[in-house]
Amino acid sequence: MKPINPKEKLLRFSDHWHLRRIATVNQMQVLLAKVSGTFLWHAHAEEDELFQVLKGTLYMRFRDRTETVREGELIVVPKGVEHCPETRGGEEVHLLLFEPLTTAHTGNVQSERTQTHYPEI
Amino acid sequence: MKPINPKEKLLRFSDHWHLRRIATVNQMQVLLAKVSGTFLWHAHAEEDELFQVLKGTLYMRFRDRTETVREGELIVVPKGVEHCPETRGGEEVHLLLFEPLTTAHTGNVQSERTQTHYPEI
Repeated sequence: MKPINPKEKLLRFSDHWHLRRIATVNQMQVLLAKVSGTFLWHAHAEEDELFQVLKGTLYMRFRDRTETVREGELIVVPKGVEHCPETRGGEEVHLLLFEPLTTAHTGNVQSERTQTHYPEI
Repeated sequence: MKPINPKEKLLRFSDHWHLRRIATVNQMQVLLAKVSGTFLWHAHAEEDELFQVLKGTLYMRFRDRTETVREGELIVVPKGVEHCPETRGGEEVHLLLFEPLTTAHTGNVQSERTQTHYPEI
């Protein structure tokens, strides 16, 4: 029940696409990430996923189009929808994610980038 | 699956302590509010509630202390914990809330301020 400062938490790590948990709310979790470049195509069979852009511009690629999500904006990716987050021009983008505790990092895809544990910071 | 801009949504209403829904994520909802002054003491028996301060400073009163939540910060109020949000000096504070769809506005308390429906904007 203490205030949580995402900007201060973001100073604690520098690796990309590696999620950290900063809070839980019922069966959901709040995660932080620094991302740059292109992630990988995946979907989550059962979980919606919310992305909030804290810094920079996120490009959320869907199979039929790309949505531009600017600083301060949110986007919800519904369950089952293939998506591939990316940034452009080498920009490092800071994200806050809200999603169920059960959500797998790369959804239906296994990759060497798949993260199985989200450290709490 | 379109980007949602909370700042733009906040321009669409001006009343205080009246929540608007801007998204759902699984069984959770994302709400916006403009608040000023003191709300009322209440608790939610089953639901945790996350507050993110988009503008201004929120004072989250608990029975034994008050937490100061500054712009950009979050606070999670766990289920069952009595709380009373307030602002000081007449400041209007803008909040984003993340909570279960089942969460009642004033929790265990009924009041003329209790809101039973959250309009989608």
